[in-house]
Amino acid sequence: MTASRAQPDIMARLLDEAAAAANSGEVPVAAAVTNAEGAIIALARNRMRENGNALHHAEILAIEAAMTRLGQDRLDGFDLWVTLEPCTMCAGAIAHARIRRLYFGARDPKAGAVESGVRFFDSAACHHRPDIYGGLSERAAAEQLQAFFAERR
Amino acid sequence: MTASRAQPDIMARLLDEAAAAANSGEVPVAAAVTNAEGAIIALARNRMRENGNALHHAEILAIEAAMTRLGQDRLDGFDLWVTLEPCTMCAGAIAHARIRRLYFGARDPKAGAVESGVRFFDSAACHHRPDIYGGLSERAAAEQLQAFFAERR
Repeated sequence: MTASRAQPDIMARLLDEAAAAANSGEVPVAAAVTNAEGAIIALARNRMRENGNALHHAEILAIEAAMTRLGQDRLDGFDLWVTLEPCTMCAGAIAHARIRRLYFGARDPKAGAVESGVRFFDSAACHHRPDIYGGLSERAAAEQLQAFFAERR
Repeated sequence: MTASRAQPDIMARLLDEAAAAANSGEVPVAAAVTNAEGAIIALARNRMRENGNALHHAEILAIEAAMTRLGQDRLDGFDLWVTLEPCTMCAGAIAHARIRRLYFGARDPKAGAVESGVRFFDSAACHHRPDIYGGLSERAAAEQLQAFFAERR
């Protein structure tokens, strides 16, 4: 399986990108859109502070960048990788973009919307449900977030 | 009450803006961000087709435009007006933006996320709940949407 071979590489790259976010004072989250061959089409990290925009989560920026690069209004057949369980806004965006598979790292019982919170993809209101693979590099992703918040306490 | 005096004017303006969206082949939805005095800071309509981006709902574009105009990463104390009940993505964005009051027109039992679907603002996962006023100019807003979809059937 292409996806499972690519998995450690992509998550390692995302953890590096999330570390760069932390160094800029952003909550360390990074996301990528990959095509069916596992090649990265777009890579993004949280830029809410840098861009002065509370909506600029890594997932939104990665999806927007992939759409722009591909000249497509949706991402049918493409996958989204992210170091943290997506929030409600991002889960909705993932459904609108018609993402094929969602791979995520740390679980987020507080603000997540996949396995936690509104569990959007399991709700009757969800018009597109990606295949979901949670808990990838979970310990590393969670430790990165914990370290970031511990420093700021 | 400033808000209630401004209400018919703002909804009428949004219905005109939504009609312009329909004329461009977009699902007719429009949104505005207003300040505490009821002045419009940003006005937007659906541009998913025009922008080639499934995430470019009127609410997202209005919030982004207001943040850019004000140079603020959130919209504490500002209100959002929209002709249709926001979807899950937009409800999440409204919470992230810390919108003070949400005014919406037609209810959307299928894709809405305020009174329908995941009812995000009533969920424990919601970190910011605006005051919510639904059903403004409801009949006109609903008829506009129905006419748009009837033409395309």
